[in-house]
Amino acid sequence: MTAPAQPGLDPAIAARLKRDGAGLVPAVVQQHDTGEVLMLGWMDDEALARTLRSGRVTFWSRSRGEYWRKGDTSGHRQWVREVRLDCDGDTLLVKVDQEGPACHTGARTCFDADVLRADG
Amino acid sequence: MTAPAQPGLDPAIAARLKRDGAGLVPAVVQQHDTGEVLMLGWMDDEALARTLRSGRVTFWSRSRGEYWRKGDTSGHRQWVREVRLDCDGDTLLVKVDQEGPACHTGARTCFDADVLRADG
Repeated sequence: MTAPAQPGLDPAIAARLKRDGAGLVPAVVQQHDTGEVLMLGWMDDEALARTLRSGRVTFWSRSRGEYWRKGDTSGHRQWVREVRLDCDGDTLLVKVDQEGPACHTGARTCFDADVLRADG
Repeated sequence: MTAPAQPGLDPAIAARLKRDGAGLVPAVVQQHDTGEVLMLGWMDDEALARTLRSGRVTFWSRSRGEYWRKGDTSGHRQWVREVRLDCDGDTLLVKVDQEGPACHTGARTCFDADVLRADG
């Protein structure tokens, strides 16, 4: 007996995904209740499959070249509430419950520090 | 007398931007008051400069290979309230006041139609 195969990405979803040249799509991560945009990461088919299956957000790290389940090192886990694909099939929106800060700097979101323009 | 040169992107901002191989960064567009994530577009330095200068969101269209000021054709303009750069310098968050639907399908957002996972 062999172990049951891990199911990959649902073929019906895979058929709708439009990946970039590296096989990736951007995933916007949003806090489900406050609406804060926390960060943007990248997913390939496998990262999306793991995210959908496990309920823990998993990215492909472009800089490290490996899968990265958010919070495994930092403890700052992202628990999936909803995953949506956009009209073009080339961007994901992942609504989560974020434990602690989302940003590696310790800020709540990755967009807290650098304001390029603000209107009154 | 020549016309005054259009100023490009502020060099201090340009120095912080980390662009992909095509010279682009993803721009997450969010409705400033409701927090809805409306869409994701792409900007190069010039699109960002125009967005910051004019207060109307301008993208680079990867499919058409041209600048695209949102709403010029559809009337569904995006008025800038705030522009932020993330901790890595490779993603923009643009908070706007969206006129009408953001999506070319007529939906309010580009993420309305396709739910891949929803938790209770």
